[in-house]
Amino acid sequence: MINVGIVGAAGYSGVELIKLLLNHDEVNITKLFGNSSVGSLIEEAHPSLRGMISLQIEQFKKEALKELDLLFVAMPSGQSMQVIKEAIDTNIKVIDVGGDFRLKDAAIYTKYYNYEHTERELLSSAVYGLSEWNEEAISNAKLVANPGCYPTSILLALLPLLKENLIESKNIGITSYSGTSGAGKSVTANMIFSEVNESVRAYKVGDHQHIPEIKQYLEHFSGVEANFSFVPHLLPVTRGIYTTIHASLKNNITEAEIINAFKHNYSSAPFIRFIGTEIPEMKNVVNTNFCDIGFRIYENGTLVLFSTIDNLVKGAAGQAIQNMNIMFGYQQTEGLLKCSGSPSLWDKKQSLQIK
Amino acid sequence: MINVGIVGAAGYSGVELIKLLLNHDEVNITKLFGNSSVGSLIEEAHPSLRGMISLQIEQFKKEALKELDLLFVAMPSGQSMQVIKEAIDTNIKVIDVGGDFRLKDAAIYTKYYNYEHTERELLSSAVYGLSEWNEEAISNAKLVANPGCYPTSILLALLPLLKENLIESKNIGITSYSGTSGAGKSVTANMIFSEVNESVRAYKVGDHQHIPEIKQYLEHFSGVEANFSFVPHLLPVTRGIYTTIHASLKNNITEAEIINAFKHNYSSAPFIRFIGTEIPEMKNVVNTNFCDIGFRIYENGTLVLFSTIDNLVKGAAGQAIQNMNIMFGYQQTEGLLKCSGSPSLWDKKQSLQIK
Amino acid sequence: MINVGIVGAAGYSGVELIKLLLNHDEVNITKLFGNSSVGSLIEEAHPSLRGMISLQIEQFKKEALKELDLLFVAMPSGQSMQVIKEAIDTNIKVIDVGGDFRLKDAAIYTKYYNYEHTERELLSSAVYGLSEWNEEAISNAKLVANPGCYPTSILLALLPLLKENLIESKNIGITSYSGTSGAGKSVTANMIFSEVNESVRAYKVGDHQHIPEIKQYLEHFSGVEANFSFVPHLLPVTRGIYTTIHASLKNNITEAEIINAFKHNYSSAPFIRFIGTEIPEMKNVVNTNFCDIGFRIYENGTLVLFSTIDNLVKGAAGQAIQNMNIMFGYQQTEGLLKCSGSPSLWDKKQSLQIK
Amino acid sequence: MINVGIVGAAGYSGVELIKLLLNHDEVNITKLFGNSSVGSLIEEAHPSLRGMISLQIEQFKKEALKELDLLFVAMPSGQSMQVIKEAIDTNIKVIDVGGDFRLKDAAIYTKYYNYEHTERELLSSAVYGLSEWNEEAISNAKLVANPGCYPTSILLALLPLLKENLIESKNIGITSYSGTSGAGKSVTANMIFSEVNESVRAYKVGDHQHIPEIKQYLEHFSGVEANFSFVPHLLPVTRGIYTTIHASLKNNITEAEIINAFKHNYSSAPFIRFIGTEIPEMKNVVNTNFCDIGFRIYENGTLVLFSTIDNLVKGAAGQAIQNMNIMFGYQQTEGLLKCSGSPSLWDKKQSLQIK
Repeated sequence: MINVGIVGAAGYSGVELIKLLLNHDEVNITKLFGNSSVGSLIEEAHPSLRGMISLQIEQFKKEALKELDLLFVAMPSGQSMQVIKEAIDTNIKVIDVGGDFRLKDAAIYTKYYNYEHTERELLSSAVYGLSEWNEEAISNAKLVANPGCYPTSILLALLPLLKENLIESKNIGITSYSGTSGAGKSVTANMIFSEVNESVRAYKVGDHQHIPEIKQYLEHFSGVEANFSFVPHLLPVTRGIYTTIHASLKNNITEAEIINAFKHNYSSAPFIRFIGTEIPEMKNVVNTNFCDIGFRIYENGTLVLFSTIDNLVKGAAGQAIQNMNIMFGYQQTEGLLKCSGSPSLWDKKQSLQIK
Repeated sequence: MINVGIVGAAGYSGVELIKLLLNHDEVNITKLFGNSSVGSLIEEAHPSLRGMISLQIEQFKKEALKELDLLFVAMPSGQSMQVIKEAIDTNIKVIDVGGDFRLKDAAIYTKYYNYEHTERELLSSAVYGLSEWNEEAISNAKLVANPGCYPTSILLALLPLLKENLIESKNIGITSYSGTSGAGKSVTANMIFSEVNESVRAYKVGDHQHIPEIKQYLEHFSGVEANFSFVPHLLPVTRGIYTTIHASLKNNITEAEIINAFKHNYSSAPFIRFIGTEIPEMKNVVNTNFCDIGFRIYENGTLVLFSTIDNLVKGAAGQAIQNMNIMFGYQQTEGLLKCSGSPSLWDKKQSLQIK
Repeated sequence: MINVGIVGAAGYSGVELIKLLLNHDEVNITKLFGNSSVGSLIEEAHPSLRGMISLQIEQFKKEALKELDLLFVAMPSGQSMQVIKEAIDTNIKVIDVGGDFRLKDAAIYTKYYNYEHTERELLSSAVYGLSEWNEEAISNAKLVANPGCYPTSILLALLPLLKENLIESKNIGITSYSGTSGAGKSVTANMIFSEVNESVRAYKVGDHQHIPEIKQYLEHFSGVEANFSFVPHLLPVTRGIYTTIHASLKNNITEAEIINAFKHNYSSAPFIRFIGTEIPEMKNVVNTNFCDIGFRIYENGTLVLFSTIDNLVKGAAGQAIQNMNIMFGYQQTEGLLKCSGSPSLWDKKQSLQIK
Repeated sequence: MINVGIVGAAGYSGVELIKLLLNHDEVNITKLFGNSSVGSLIEEAHPSLRGMISLQIEQFKKEALKELDLLFVAMPSGQSMQVIKEAIDTNIKVIDVGGDFRLKDAAIYTKYYNYEHTERELLSSAVYGLSEWNEEAISNAKLVANPGCYPTSILLALLPLLKENLIESKNIGITSYSGTSGAGKSVTANMIFSEVNESVRAYKVGDHQHIPEIKQYLEHFSGVEANFSFVPHLLPVTRGIYTTIHASLKNNITEAEIINAFKHNYSSAPFIRFIGTEIPEMKNVVNTNFCDIGFRIYENGTLVLFSTIDNLVKGAAGQAIQNMNIMFGYQQTEGLLKCSGSPSLWDKKQSLQIK
């Protein structure tokens, strides 16, 4: 049994962490830290929590860390460095759901996040929390940088193919659509319902802060230099990311080789549902920690890859708990998934039927 | 540990039952029965279930009931009588999520459901599964008729006030809005996305089959003859019911008396979140078994009551599991709600603050 | 040919006015006045207007009124009094799309709008612009107070029945649902997409500023004292209002009498589509100036009335243009509706079939 | 003044044609032909048309063509050949809104449309109605094959760049998202609201019937062999297509050259709103005949192109009317667009500002 605290408890990722952790048998939610909501009960700030938990939101203080084993930090970019430094100094483990410790090169923070990184030492020791690709490092980490939502959907789909040299590493065209909860609770004129509903728009084209994160970890885990263009779009749904990738197959690569690459890499991954040449649907993963991946090969040799996740679960709070499970030696699925029997994802009949 | 089967496993209520039961520590999902999907694996019919369960959908047969302790029946109106008769004869318990055993007067089935009821004996012995109002009868029942979604939202809000004589029992105007999953997976021209999206419409005005159900149980549980008009509407959301009721307060009744009536009746009900003069929001109950209820008194003496539930959870599968818990002696919340500590819903600060 | 100006041109009602006026053969849009967007071109503030109009948004100045025949004012509550005073003093006609001149009793502004009305003289001379019920006064008006969106949907449905004494004038329960554009472009935490989508909530219960407006004009046009409760709700669509009214029929009133009341009052109203016992759908009126009205009589003597409009058209800009047409002697439909032939709304086959 | 008929009047494109044609001063809607709705009045089949038009839907008969100058045909694939043959034989002009005459190679119909084309002679004489690229041929055509919705959004964006050799003609990755009205009124299990809402899915991956159409006309109008992969997705909105294209810039091509290519080709096109490096939003084009196009150049030399249209207007009925205007010598904008003054789309300040 561990005691955890959450900084940024009243944001969308914070509330999602609370709801998921209530299902986790080995966790006490001990401390909630906030900002504008300090002094309120969490169930006043989020009435959906009434009858489930009753805890006051406090101002973050280093002293409050003593009783904790783990601190989740879910704060806007650039605001978590001080808090995380203090937690690490207090010798408790930290999972940063935000982006402040994902990149290795501090200069990139200046360029893409518009702030100067002040904790460069921690930056180099932080472990990237892409659960399926970094399990061992995560299990030993003091500070885990939880991946961004777009990078999660993209890395999980592309890494097996880049690593096994099945696709060209250049001219990869990535188009992602995200629900609005990805923008958090930020209150801006272009996020009100009347502006988002019945519409679609690309945004941060060419300068989204996830671009360097995708590049760094595509290359880190595959060992291949990757050249891609990533375009995020806003979708009129609350939750979910859908990523469509156009890549060029290397010569003579077959459907079977693609399938095998996913099998090799994900045969024991409980949250990756590779469905072969079937086409994923976003609604199948919403409110779950699953990532559904499918593909098709075009006559002209283009591989089209599809990947979909819930941005608040596998793209944030869920993967954070998966990482917590790895760090504390629990089953990866604890608190995230209950199964009947042991339904294999890799049984041919189920998922790798080629239509 | 009990073994349960589900008839109609591939419908929306069936799939919701499966997902909720996977979280229940005392239940094995043993048998899934279907119709058009017989022979498929449930996770083929509903890819959202991949990696969670793998079970073939079978044609219903009496013999298959032997190994079961409980059968959930989630079939379209008029189709469950034979199945339920056979289950009861086999001596296993049954919860009918559909409407075939809710009414006492068989003639009403002819009028509102357009079929002749053939199991009138069972009709009289069936117990109405409004968990908060019929717990003792449910605990001894062999056949529970799970309430309809609209009736659940309406009865839970009106019963305390009618029973305690706080409102007039005539001229009660009830307006409900429901998400589209309430219509099940029926494929009709007026349910396609382009026809439902960005619109709203009333339907079955004056002849909805829930009208006699509401009347029968308003009167049964309150002891008062009730005269109301109920108008259901279709809403462009997937899940959720929002009910707004206009009623006339009896003379001199105060806000405090209204609040007390809810306290008397629901002080130990874990799923009723009475929030006094705050206004419920549908999103706070979606994907939960909660019913949120609030009210306001108008200057002219009108009481306006609000009640919201998830039609597939508290309005169908969730309440069915709550009833199963009562029938088998489990905690009512088992499989439906995990809390941190014992957050009382009746602490003044939390929920009964009058703004 | 008349020259018109619009104050508040960059708000939702302002843009809707522009789009509709572009279709009007007798109008030049000459001046656009704004606030935060002053200095921008209107098509920069609203890219949907690119290629249709190019006009700079100016700071309002009295001098700019000289070249105008008519000023539309679409400003937030409490901000239009000064502007309108100056326009009336300059001797040009004014249509106020906002609420500042709808009520006769200045004290009500203090109570419901939270400001002190400073132009009480104009308040008493302003003419309420409910086109179908006040045509003559509008035709002679200098200042027209355009009705609110909710009042429009409610008054048009109830007035024929109250005036002809077909329903009881007390215990009228009114439940309305509105799309989000009714809230204008206000940027508040509870209007962002993630908070509105897949949800519903009542708001301003008992203290909505349209309550005194509905009361005043129900009574003014029907001559009957009306006692009602009105509850507005927010709906996850961009445009449209759907109103459902429960009222008690007077003794022995028949369906035919209800139908006749609507015929008497709207036989020459091009924008009222009374459809008898058919049920209106919101999508049929979106982007039009129509109001669709239907009804049903319940076995217990309750009359349920339905009324639906587009809140930005018949509930704001469209009715404003209809009023402009009346004030300047144009056909009421000019700029708002083009027909093929003269399709009567009152032909029995079309609309008054009783199902 | 011309007399027009519409075959398939009760479908989404048919109704959109009616609504747009009501605004056209030179057109009488004389005949409506249908199928399942024969015998009904059009305003019964589509209550949104009440009060605007009243015309009976007839069974198509050759004799009824006599009084017509033009026949619009909006039928499902494979069903229009006979009708169009008879119309052409009767010597009236035809615009086929469907896909039966877009491709030159009959064999492709067998492969992508699953039927044998029986009117191969007409196939070769039909003129492709991409208004901006084929104006002269359209003006002389007897039979115009109106472009598909996806091809319209894609061709308008890519053609200037392919024709002027600014991008590589291979590895073009095209990702499009469409609203549900693109699927017409087809009633299938995966189009009901509960299945589409809050979700996204790709479909017809690799075998969509628009693939050969895009290829044929990319090459025809640009003179370049084009190699691309096109992936359509279903979006939970009613109307609109949003296309995102990844292409490789040829060496040293600058932003200014891209801008100039669009200027050269569209300087007198009233419906193309090229907005330079601004990002289009779908809602700006919904309910209009505009196509908004923008682009960005990535650091790695990738050009990302964006294009958005209303699938029922510029992608169907609107472009059909634009083509009718060309065929009969009316202004292209007649019935489709009213402007104030002559707002140029090519003024630098408005649209070609580089941010």
